[in-house]
Amino acid sequence: MKTHLAPVPLDKAYRLLTHGPTVLVSAHHAGTDDVMAAAWACALDFSPPKLTVVLDKATRTRELVEASGAFLIQVPTAAQLRLTHAVGTRSLKDVPDKLARAGVELFRMDGHDLPFVAGCSAWLACRLVPEPRNQAVHDLFIGEVVAAWADTRAFAQGHWRFEAAGPEWRSLHHVTGGHFYAIGEALDVGDVAQD
Amino acid sequence: MKTHLAPVPLDKAYRLLTHGPTVLVSAHHAGTDDVMAAAWACALDFSPPKLTVVLDKATRTRELVEASGAFLIQVPTAAQLRLTHAVGTRSLKDVPDKLARAGVELFRMDGHDLPFVAGCSAWLACRLVPEPRNQAVHDLFIGEVVAAWADTRAFAQGHWRFEAAGPEWRSLHHVTGGHFYAIGEALDVGDVAQD
Repeated sequence: MKTHLAPVPLDKAYRLLTHGPTVLVSAHHAGTDDVMAAAWACALDFSPPKLTVVLDKATRTRELVEASGAFLIQVPTAAQLRLTHAVGTRSLKDVPDKLARAGVELFRMDGHDLPFVAGCSAWLACRLVPEPRNQAVHDLFIGEVVAAWADTRAFAQGHWRFEAAGPEWRSLHHVTGGHFYAIGEALDVGDVAQD
Repeated sequence: MKTHLAPVPLDKAYRLLTHGPTVLVSAHHAGTDDVMAAAWACALDFSPPKLTVVLDKATRTRELVEASGAFLIQVPTAAQLRLTHAVGTRSLKDVPDKLARAGVELFRMDGHDLPFVAGCSAWLACRLVPEPRNQAVHDLFIGEVVAAWADTRAFAQGHWRFEAAGPEWRSLHHVTGGHFYAIGEALDVGDVAQD
């Protein structure tokens, strides 16, 4: 599953999130892995790259993030629509085999004790930047991206290549309930006719 | 320009941003209007609805937000691609007629002293929730949505209707430079075949 996986330079990592995809959040602590979906994730800074993600107090993933000080943000694909919805609607607290039921296959990367979800288009390993007030009052977590990777079929040379990849590689953009949009057509300002 | 404009109930306002569009940020203070583009905006809470937006210290819009304690988040459309790029790359500090040059047409709504950009698909009027540390350290601003509206050709009955509207209504999702994607195909978890 790592055949097409390539590192993304940290100065390009913001491009993995700037178009606003729904993400998967992974974390690990003391033998427990969890993965949840989060539509409310956003780039925050270029260098070092940082991001924000909203993690509800009810989630097990949040507990693992707070205990370990680390998390992984991943960009799921249209092929993972059901997986994304499933990990976003069931909690590990209620469904101990949540990940298996959702069809999540995990892998590990050297130097990062985090559960990587196979089949995503991008992975951003983050160090939690503790901001106790944000976390307590707003459920808002800040991460500094310490390493990033992408599947070169979807993102290569610092650019998404959705136009060239099959529709199964499109990022997911949640609206509500089971309703999502895939990312669509490329629009380039240079393409717009001058008038 | 207000013919198709309808209020969005506050408990549905998060749906205007959850799919991760690039937004326009408007603010007004002491006779000055400004509008900038921001790709790093995100929903933060459901009720009351809140959102985050990253505003660089170099922007005039940020100064107006800090001075007035209010701002407007708007969802521009594919038809506004050039306008969005233009207000995101020029500063009012350098180009006093920035808005006119970008083709921005403003209108006002009763009870909100904010510059509304005509032609957007949605508008979210926000009260700044002061968080001095976030603003100073992370350039991160939190707004509480106090009123929201949408153009009913793009968003009606609490749902985006991109499938039914023309391609010019699609939301914009910035990547870098002049490169954007339009939002694409609707994907419904109920549509996925059970296997």
